[in-house]
Amino acid sequence: MACIGSGRLCAHVEKLCQFGHFTQLRRKVSTTTCVKSRPVISRTSGTLLQRCQNKTNTQDSRINLARATSTMQTQMPGSLPDYQIDPYRLIEDDLKDIFDEIRLELINNNTQEELHPISTYYFDGQGKAIRPMFTILMARAINYHNGRNDLSHSQRQIAMISEMIHTSSLLHDDVIDQSDFRRGKPSVNVVWSQKKVAMAGNYILAVTCMMISRIRNDDVTVTISQIINDLVQGEFMQLGSKETENERFAHYLTKTYRKTSSLIANCVKAVNVHCFSLFISAQINVGLAFQLVDDLLDFVASSAAMGKPTATDLKLGLATAPVLFACERYPELNAMIMRRFQEPGDVEKAFELVHKSNGLEQTRFLAKKHCVEANKIAQSFAKSPYQKALMIMTDLVINRMK
Amino acid sequence: MACIGSGRLCAHVEKLCQFGHFTQLRRKVSTTTCVKSRPVISRTSGTLLQRCQNKTNTQDSRINLARATSTMQTQMPGSLPDYQIDPYRLIEDDLKDIFDEIRLELINNNTQEELHPISTYYFDGQGKAIRPMFTILMARAINYHNGRNDLSHSQRQIAMISEMIHTSSLLHDDVIDQSDFRRGKPSVNVVWSQKKVAMAGNYILAVTCMMISRIRNDDVTVTISQIINDLVQGEFMQLGSKETENERFAHYLTKTYRKTSSLIANCVKAVNVHCFSLFISAQINVGLAFQLVDDLLDFVASSAAMGKPTATDLKLGLATAPVLFACERYPELNAMIMRRFQEPGDVEKAFELVHKSNGLEQTRFLAKKHCVEANKIAQSFAKSPYQKALMIMTDLVINRMK
Repeated sequence: MACIGSGRLCAHVEKLCQFGHFTQLRRKVSTTTCVKSRPVISRTSGTLLQRCQNKTNTQDSRINLARATSTMQTQMPGSLPDYQIDPYRLIEDDLKDIFDEIRLELINNNTQEELHPISTYYFDGQGKAIRPMFTILMARAINYHNGRNDLSHSQRQIAMISEMIHTSSLLHDDVIDQSDFRRGKPSVNVVWSQKKVAMAGNYILAVTCMMISRIRNDDVTVTISQIINDLVQGEFMQLGSKETENERFAHYLTKTYRKTSSLIANCVKAVNVHCFSLFISAQINVGLAFQLVDDLLDFVASSAAMGKPTATDLKLGLATAPVLFACERYPELNAMIMRRFQEPGDVEKAFELVHKSNGLEQTRFLAKKHCVEANKIAQSFAKSPYQKALMIMTDLVINRMK
Repeated sequence: MACIGSGRLCAHVEKLCQFGHFTQLRRKVSTTTCVKSRPVISRTSGTLLQRCQNKTNTQDSRINLARATSTMQTQMPGSLPDYQIDPYRLIEDDLKDIFDEIRLELINNNTQEELHPISTYYFDGQGKAIRPMFTILMARAINYHNGRNDLSHSQRQIAMISEMIHTSSLLHDDVIDQSDFRRGKPSVNVVWSQKKVAMAGNYILAVTCMMISRIRNDDVTVTISQIINDLVQGEFMQLGSKETENERFAHYLTKTYRKTSSLIANCVKAVNVHCFSLFISAQINVGLAFQLVDDLLDFVASSAAMGKPTATDLKLGLATAPVLFACERYPELNAMIMRRFQEPGDVEKAFELVHKSNGLEQTRFLAKKHCVEANKIAQSFAKSPYQKALMIMTDLVINRMK
């Protein structure tokens, strides 16, 4: 059995780029779209967080000014429409103990006391739990489609595994990127040494492998191994850049598939190895939309709302969708992209130009397009509260503020 | 099915320590034992290696003096006895393409060109290939014991996996320890950035997971997952130290089991999930002996012979068996162990004291004891060239010079 390999998606993305899809897309985009918002309460986590925020605030004064005068305003009054179903409430029983159970797995397989707090640091219930949410909703929607109204033990385990693989990669990211804070508290690498954090990341992956093996389904093992491989490939792609505009878009979208979509999509494959490939396509679209919005929020949301520093991608030398779109109006960005925003003033200048351009609106338009595609597929499922909740979740992906 | 968990071994090791096993052992050891040697040809690898060696040579002048006046001399003329069977020749057909096939796996699962040279850097045929050697010999010996004279595809895959898990951990070790050179050439982290090397380590592990899943045997997956977990736990244990002498020995041996023995022993479990636990015990003994000799060689062999710097453990703050044994005669080592040899002169002083003590002989005696135990078990196998070769390999573990 083949799982959703990267090759097919890459070919698809490259085809889109060759045919000038993104150039056409840019022309279609309206410049008036706004991100809907919910009031956000900032969380604090003691003096260390305050220190990180102060440091970032000082560095970012020019960035904040650009944000204030941006074509895309956030933090606007108003709220999301009242949906009849609350997806979190709907699967509350499936979700509520997931973090406790992950912590228990990490404690039970370990004899080194100090590994406990490090490996469980991000399993504190403060994450968005997007991956287990989508995994459980898709599992239940597919089960319902197949005439069942349950969630099997293995399917729930896969939801846990989805969050564990993601978190393991966060630990490695934090070490590699030397992050300051995440999820409203000091990053794990600020609290413990790089060595220990890197090993804790490996440890989470090791326990994940043990959990996968306990599911005793070879197709699941193959599928989840592909996710781990895709994550590494995506991370590696992020270190490189391409010469031409279209090549860069293909590179960016393939990287996004590998770093984000593959996990969300292949977990759906894992919860039902015989499901239609269309269902997996839906989740590829959701994954791409999720990351596009993440890249957008890095430009428009405040650090307090995000619980982590913003404009991080530029500081790390990464050109994400908003910058790539902004290149059309401001070609001077090309040189900055090639030197990975390393010269003094590059980050601030690029940030300003993105806000002056319609790169943010184009990014949101593209994300929305992927969500529409995902919801079109979801409509082909048997009607159920889970199908409805999936569509609401897709809306939340577009409208989220962090 | 439970695989060889760490708990049982730990309990065993702790029991030995509680009953003063190591104190008795120290008294038994003769101070006249010498390590047998083969003439060693130093490999060079261009100017970068030369630079690393020069740097190490300057730092190590006092260490070299201590080595020259040590109670344990190495590089003595002479050679190993002529065995009737050459284990490498015996399984040449099984072994010869292993590195090519590993490289192929790493190339086939990857689209990022730069990942190729990094992830295949240590699969250059210059390693000792101890893990695939033991895995294949044990597989063939067990098959023969069960009336078969073959090696299955899965068993050979597990031999490849054993080398890949080990190499993945080498990449992470090199990043964490900031190594200079290994296997006679600049370490991988000297040639590429830490980020890329860390990711390449993850990549090797990801491909390993994919290979495990293709074997489609859940017991194998469980067993190999345990190895990955043990490796992380062992690595983490290495960062800590214990207050009392006996606690330290238990800690050291458990760490050694997890970092080295578990891989060698559980691969035997993986090649035949129904094999007697006695066969696995044999490999636990071999693994412990292998690491004890490695720790010994770090004190007595030259950098050129080892292909990597020596006295590395002390420089990394690690107290291995030779130091732990030397504490009895030189209790001033206890304070140095507790401060992880961080004060100026600690490394050189500890190195001198180990050579003045009989810590090296005691280490070798303990390694030999484990080898005798392993060979006693091997004698219970059905007689075959593989059984004989296993016993020869165990001798080579004791007598190796690198």
